[in-house]
Amino acid sequence: MTRSLVALFAIAAGSFATAVTLAATADTPAKSPLYGVTVPEGYRHWEFIAPAHETPPLDELRVVVGNDIAIKAYREGTLPFPDGSILVKLAWKHVQSKEFAPAFVPGAATTVQVMVKDSKKYAASGGWGFGRFVDGKPVDLAQHQTCLGCHKANVKDHDLVFTRYAP
Amino acid sequence: MTRSLVALFAIAAGSFATAVTLAATADTPAKSPLYGVTVPEGYRHWEFIAPAHETPPLDELRVVVGNDIAIKAYREGTLPFPDGSILVKLAWKHVQSKEFAPAFVPGAATTVQVMVKDSKKYAASGGWGFGRFVDGKPVDLAQHQTCLGCHKANVKDHDLVFTRYAP
Repeated sequence: MTRSLVALFAIAAGSFATAVTLAATADTPAKSPLYGVTVPEGYRHWEFIAPAHETPPLDELRVVVGNDIAIKAYREGTLPFPDGSILVKLAWKHVQSKEFAPAFVPGAATTVQVMVKDSKKYAASGGWGFGRFVDGKPVDLAQHQTCLGCHKANVKDHDLVFTRYAP
Repeated sequence: MTRSLVALFAIAAGSFATAVTLAATADTPAKSPLYGVTVPEGYRHWEFIAPAHETPPLDELRVVVGNDIAIKAYREGTLPFPDGSILVKLAWKHVQSKEFAPAFVPGAATTVQVMVKDSKKYAASGGWGFGRFVDGKPVDLAQHQTCLGCHKANVKDHDLVFTRYAP
């Protein structure tokens, strides 16, 4: 009987610890491997910088938005982007409109990708930290190891940022 | 001599009148034919609702933004859209990125298209006024006569508005 009670308490305590851990996980934004970048709160309300269309295999429509620091830098042509700049790229499947055949519109959401400028913290990666998220969870380390190389190899004279401002 | 002076004054007065007319034109936003819709001030700062891709012949990338009334209606699923809702569609040529071949990005800006909800003023057109602008100037009457018919014929159960909210 005593043993059973101890066992019951142990199970209860275990459940409680699990519950506490889960709550902490839900409240703490998930961080990208390598960079520790999180999905910034309220980004869906930020101003857009430009849309894009990525052909298959990804086959996506995209919109890049920026926080106030990033938007100001774009408008004033400030390069490099100042510390505190955050860019978020939203992406959806590129799906034909059911109402108007020549148009393609957003289907299911795919990834959310984030770039954060912090010239000290991210000195080793050109001042930028990267994060790629699916359903709010960061993708794996291997994928994050590809961000910098691709931006470095392809972006020309724009502080590692592909997206230009669409007037 | 007196005649010359009178002539000079007449020319000066004429120039002044022309200058005043030009200034008035510059300050007064151009109105679309049929609906009297103008391009709303500050729309480039508005939140985006969704991007779209229009295949050739138009061959465009687009982003639809909305004022606060329209955005609130989208978020809360309010239909029909309340009076005061304004939607603006920005469009650019769909151009291959010079830095990343699978991506298409905004080229030259093409049209700005506006829908304004006013159920009394626009009672005859489902509560919506339409405006299509190129370089800030409305296109002709014939083009504006096509807006309502196309929206009416194609949009299903969404208050004549094609664009749905991209999460």
